[in-house]
Amino acid sequence: MKFTVSEIAQMLDGTVVGDDQIIINSAAKIEEGRPGCISFLANSKYENYIYSTNSSAVIVNKDFTPKREIAATLIYVENAYTAFTILLEAYQKKMSGSKSGVEQPSFIGDNSLTGEDCYRGAFSYIGKNCMIGDGVKIYPNAYLGDNISVGDNSVIHPGVRIYDNTIIGKSCVIFANTVIGSDGFGFAPQSDGTYKAIPQTGNVVIEDNVSIGANCSIDCATMGSTIIRAGAKIDNLVQIAHNVEIGKNTVIAAQSGISGSTTIGEQCVIAGQVGIVGHISIANNTKIGAQSGLGKSIKKEGLSLSGSPARDLNEHLRSMALVRRLPEMEERLRELESKEVASVIHKETYK
Amino acid sequence: MKFTVSEIAQMLDGTVVGDDQIIINSAAKIEEGRPGCISFLANSKYENYIYSTNSSAVIVNKDFTPKREIAATLIYVENAYTAFTILLEAYQKKMSGSKSGVEQPSFIGDNSLTGEDCYRGAFSYIGKNCMIGDGVKIYPNAYLGDNISVGDNSVIHPGVRIYDNTIIGKSCVIFANTVIGSDGFGFAPQSDGTYKAIPQTGNVVIEDNVSIGANCSIDCATMGSTIIRAGAKIDNLVQIAHNVEIGKNTVIAAQSGISGSTTIGEQCVIAGQVGIVGHISIANNTKIGAQSGLGKSIKKEGLSLSGSPARDLNEHLRSMALVRRLPEMEERLRELESKEVASVIHKETYK
Amino acid sequence: MKFTVSEIAQMLDGTVVGDDQIIINSAAKIEEGRPGCISFLANSKYENYIYSTNSSAVIVNKDFTPKREIAATLIYVENAYTAFTILLEAYQKKMSGSKSGVEQPSFIGDNSLTGEDCYRGAFSYIGKNCMIGDGVKIYPNAYLGDNISVGDNSVIHPGVRIYDNTIIGKSCVIFANTVIGSDGFGFAPQSDGTYKAIPQTGNVVIEDNVSIGANCSIDCATMGSTIIRAGAKIDNLVQIAHNVEIGKNTVIAAQSGISGSTTIGEQCVIAGQVGIVGHISIANNTKIGAQSGLGKSIKKEGLSLSGSPARDLNEHLRSMALVRRLPEMEERLRELESKEVASVIHKETYK
Repeated sequence: MKFTVSEIAQMLDGTVVGDDQIIINSAAKIEEGRPGCISFLANSKYENYIYSTNSSAVIVNKDFTPKREIAATLIYVENAYTAFTILLEAYQKKMSGSKSGVEQPSFIGDNSLTGEDCYRGAFSYIGKNCMIGDGVKIYPNAYLGDNISVGDNSVIHPGVRIYDNTIIGKSCVIFANTVIGSDGFGFAPQSDGTYKAIPQTGNVVIEDNVSIGANCSIDCATMGSTIIRAGAKIDNLVQIAHNVEIGKNTVIAAQSGISGSTTIGEQCVIAGQVGIVGHISIANNTKIGAQSGLGKSIKKEGLSLSGSPARDLNEHLRSMALVRRLPEMEERLRELESKEVASVIHKETYK
Repeated sequence: MKFTVSEIAQMLDGTVVGDDQIIINSAAKIEEGRPGCISFLANSKYENYIYSTNSSAVIVNKDFTPKREIAATLIYVENAYTAFTILLEAYQKKMSGSKSGVEQPSFIGDNSLTGEDCYRGAFSYIGKNCMIGDGVKIYPNAYLGDNISVGDNSVIHPGVRIYDNTIIGKSCVIFANTVIGSDGFGFAPQSDGTYKAIPQTGNVVIEDNVSIGANCSIDCATMGSTIIRAGAKIDNLVQIAHNVEIGKNTVIAAQSGISGSTTIGEQCVIAGQVGIVGHISIANNTKIGAQSGLGKSIKKEGLSLSGSPARDLNEHLRSMALVRRLPEMEERLRELESKEVASVIHKETYK
Repeated sequence: MKFTVSEIAQMLDGTVVGDDQIIINSAAKIEEGRPGCISFLANSKYENYIYSTNSSAVIVNKDFTPKREIAATLIYVENAYTAFTILLEAYQKKMSGSKSGVEQPSFIGDNSLTGEDCYRGAFSYIGKNCMIGDGVKIYPNAYLGDNISVGDNSVIHPGVRIYDNTIIGKSCVIFANTVIGSDGFGFAPQSDGTYKAIPQTGNVVIEDNVSIGANCSIDCATMGSTIIRAGAKIDNLVQIAHNVEIGKNTVIAAQSGISGSTTIGEQCVIAGQVGIVGHISIANNTKIGAQSGLGKSIKKEGLSLSGSPARDLNEHLRSMALVRRLPEMEERLRELESKEVASVIHKETYK
């Protein structure tokens, strides 16, 4: 990014106070700014920083009135936070938007079609009978098997592995080294103690606007589909087992794992390192705290749960507080017992 | 898969009742069937579904007697579940069996040999002095270093990384982006507060019929070998540290981690997100519940353990039930104390 | 490694007793030795093994006096453990040192420069404007985006993914399939229930002598940098979120996760499967036990913490011991209550 403040102000429909020819090449938090950076001030709590920031320019709300002199150039806009986000998006688009065309060597199998304005990086692999939409970016070293479809404007990052028959919607982002559609973990115990793999012949369906972080594993269904509904956001190192369904706009933080055939509702928020057993369903709008373990279906919507086994958040906190006080409780119990003994002795002695 | 019902019946040694010329192109659970699908009914609990299923054909046990009319074609066999599994396996074999030969560009180093009927995908890399058995499939973007041997009919999925000197048995499956044989985590603290890497010069040995999921990390031994015994089944995102030994037919679910130099016995079942400390051994047939933490060796075989720290499953459940009831217990304690005080006051007053 | 005992003794400045022409091709623990192996004996606790070892040679301290006959050739040195480590390092260097030059096909973008004695494996990808230092090894199938710098003698293992603008110091090691610099997990909730990605425009900075295991995810900062300070050692499958800072020489074991904007001090030791929430800071020299969960900043240096929520290790152990004894405590409580009742009845009856 190399823009003058004037160009940025124009993009944001803002008014400049100060030198509008300064070159901006990066964005920074107002308290971490350096020359060449642009920052924003939306929350008056951080106002003090604007008088000392080293950023070259700061985007501010149009009603902002400085109390002292400010070294940085100011850009006045309707809503500083929104404007800043728009700027970052424009920056990101500009950076990633530069990728298009086909780098060599790359591999594409028979009967596979790619749309307009696609990027296929070097050493990327696309199998047979794939349908790749317009504006799709497939980064270097990514692998797509056979019979896969990827919707318009989705981005497949480096080293992603997508197994046969996967269906990916529009505007999805799948970050590096994530694996989509490898075999579910299903084995039938044999009489001699060995296990025999149960064929996993289903697929994975990912709807539109889904984001999946780096190094995740999303298994294909035994039969039918493992489904990630539209708008779901999944962080890094998450495990999604076979035949799981993740509801619309549900958010799952890093290192959580969902076991086979479990259904998670819409608009749920699952924190980091959570484990959820198989064959249960979780109602819409459920919130699950970090490191929780869920062993039973949640039928009521909108609950906040925590702990392993998980339960109502407040009850969990109360129990945890008492676990901390267990040594004290045991002391009190001991005290009562000694008085009880004393009282019995007393009674025995004086009866 | 595109077969007539007649062809499938022949494969399964079954008898057809209904239209045997219908085309089958997919498998589905009986309750999720669509036209073109084949399903099975083995458990009478699900019998109701057979009267309404949209599947075109259903495999049933030979003693099945319909109570009402059934739209689907039926295939009568000795054992419906077994027959269905055979069918899925045949399907899977047909699908994956189509891969053979060498796609270009691919890389193979000096003195490396591959057996008959191998598949080497584009952008796969094999270093020097490797011995690759008959029927081995090495998918695109997989990496094998030097001095590696892979037994007959093993499958190395896309993006798997296998370090130098690893030995892999026959009929193993290693899913995408798993790393075998990278350095164990061993550092010697120095007097200046820095750490110095302890050279990890051992290897990984994987015996026959082992299955390892996606995105796992199995470290090489410091010296000697990290060993995965025959028939072990490991799910996704599992960590196996240096010098660990996993026993025959032991099953480890997703996101579990085994620390260095620990030995896990045969036929153990380790659920998801379990952590096991280093330098201990776990007896044969041990079952460990999800999210448990093991800090001590388990010497007795056949135990079921849970919790962190792990203990007998039933004791753990009893304790956890009481943790939930801690607020109530504290209340009862408070009650007793108040009565105790009242009683003392009573005694003091009336003595 | 193929050396005579005589050559090894010379390298270690040692004195040989026994056949100095034996060929050594591997290293092993003294109790696991085989012909052709070299072992060491430093701790007299293991002395018994030296009389029965199958290793061909054993490195011993210069004051070692055998009590019985020893079949193996001995190499007497000042300090057996140190000498053995030197030997392993020399071995490892020799093995990995053999890689240099450029294997084809590989990809390097415009304006990217590599130093002297570099190795670039087949199917490795380097984007535009990268600066790769002297002696850097980039293994096959690794991916580096644009504007990346890698300091001298760092090693990028197979399948590592490094996003644009990452800065890596000297003598770092990044193991297979780790992802550096993919997007942080930041989404702004919209009024219609969907989430909008907050642009992640920062980078990752890794200082000198850092080691990062396999299959880790280290996210780029939203703005500014996610920072791994010099000498930090990170195990496999670790999650480091956006804007995290890991202090100098801090050690993090496998499967732990650090949430966004958290700062970890210097010389900390974080065990496996630990979770740390976002926006907190952990003081220098903090030790955190396996599977712990940290929800609050730790201001005092040098504490040992455990549990979820984490607290002082000893207090945690005391509470956990009482959790195990909860059924017994409940029994005691019940006992007191029944006596209380009895006593009330007694009083009621006899008053």
